[in-house]
Amino acid sequence: MSATDKAQPKPPMRDSLVAAAFRLFLERGYEQTTVDDIVALAGVGRRSFFRYFPSKEDVVFPDHERCLADMTAFLAASDERHEPVRRVCDAARLVLLMYAENPSFSVQRYRLTKQVPGLRAYELSVVWRYERALAEYLRGRLTGRTHGTLHADVIAAAVVAAHNNALRSWLRSDGRGDATATVDHALGFVQSAFGTPPAPAAAPAPASAALSPAAEHPEDVVVVVARRGTPLWRVVREIETRLEPDRNP
Amino acid sequence: MSATDKAQPKPPMRDSLVAAAFRLFLERGYEQTTVDDIVALAGVGRRSFFRYFPSKEDVVFPDHERCLADMTAFLAASDERHEPVRRVCDAARLVLLMYAENPSFSVQRYRLTKQVPGLRAYELSVVWRYERALAEYLRGRLTGRTHGTLHADVIAAAVVAAHNNALRSWLRSDGRGDATATVDHALGFVQSAFGTPPAPAAAPAPASAALSPAAEHPEDVVVVVARRGTPLWRVVREIETRLEPDRNP
Repeated sequence: MSATDKAQPKPPMRDSLVAAAFRLFLERGYEQTTVDDIVALAGVGRRSFFRYFPSKEDVVFPDHERCLADMTAFLAASDERHEPVRRVCDAARLVLLMYAENPSFSVQRYRLTKQVPGLRAYELSVVWRYERALAEYLRGRLTGRTHGTLHADVIAAAVVAAHNNALRSWLRSDGRGDATATVDHALGFVQSAFGTPPAPAAAPAPASAALSPAAEHPEDVVVVVARRGTPLWRVVREIETRLEPDRNP
Repeated sequence: MSATDKAQPKPPMRDSLVAAAFRLFLERGYEQTTVDDIVALAGVGRRSFFRYFPSKEDVVFPDHERCLADMTAFLAASDERHEPVRRVCDAARLVLLMYAENPSFSVQRYRLTKQVPGLRAYELSVVWRYERALAEYLRGRLTGRTHGTLHADVIAAAVVAAHNNALRSWLRSDGRGDATATVDHALGFVQSAFGTPPAPAAAPAPASAALSPAAEHPEDVVVVVARRGTPLWRVVREIETRLEPDRNP
């Protein structure tokens, strides 16, 4: 087998194992498919399978390890100029890109995962690792803030929940529609709740009776007048909308 | 065995199984302990064990099913007068109560769970079920809001993350300190980001140069003046603090 392995470049063999696995999962069901079935269909040996995938579950999520590594590298390449909440939102978008690379595969996997409790548990552990990567980065950036670890954990969880809400909505629509716009909107909600607005743009935001840049210092001051009963999330959204009209469709 | 089972009231047998299991887990390790070992030490049969616990993992978390049922009942008993974000925070406090009922057991379990990957995965699935219970309630309450399901999922995730950050901090301190105060503070952060302030109190909030109730309509209007670069979470926290000084230590 090892001679055969060496004769083939690695990516095709890995891809053919994933393709064989999914063909069998869809035909027979996940539980009814063994690793022996998969390697027989792919025309390789068991050792080749386990070189790429520690277990049958891992072949269902072949790209998460790479994506986790990409996310960690992306966050490690940050510096002080990156607004931290925006940065973790951008890191979460790497997961969306992985799903959007191959919509039909992602939709098939989504349906499979919903049917198999073991895969659901596996997915939860993967999601947890993404969330910890975001939280660890935020903890580093928010160390100067009182209760920085609390804020880091809450923001990371909110980012993951927003991303996954949008991703699931796209997967439920069979991968139709604009996944990027859906995820952008969802992450915008988290940024409106927790993020710091970026440096002011050259042009002042449009004035309004409810919320207007003070005339004396158009770039520095925002005045909010709100009824006391106004929900805080509405106040925040209003501020965000007025400050950055382009970012809030 | 069934005659013996009937002779004993159920709670003591269930408790003695948990006590025997934890004694063995701590002495020998979780993986090295079998269900047979547990029932031998507890002096009962295997059938009795599986009557109470579907698997060895479940004996590690003997109260989560009851707590999930309590949480679901608590949320089902809500009505329109309950501010939804505050309501899910109160629901999350039921989990804290379960842990705080028996601090030494909770601390032992925390250490065990950190050591055994299988238990960590089990715990993630339990946490996911709590989060879904909160999100389902919020989805029902926020149906009138645009993007209600997104907001529901994000708020539920933030509540769970805040609760668990505080709970873990208490468990790491070996169950010393005021768990309730720690969790209250953590949930207060989520409420400040997403919650609706309650109906105004009888006395107006104290005036301040930065943020003061308008003199003409002290109960109805709040004025915020902030530099444009101020992080939004700071604006929100400031509003919350001024409106409800008692709720923000």
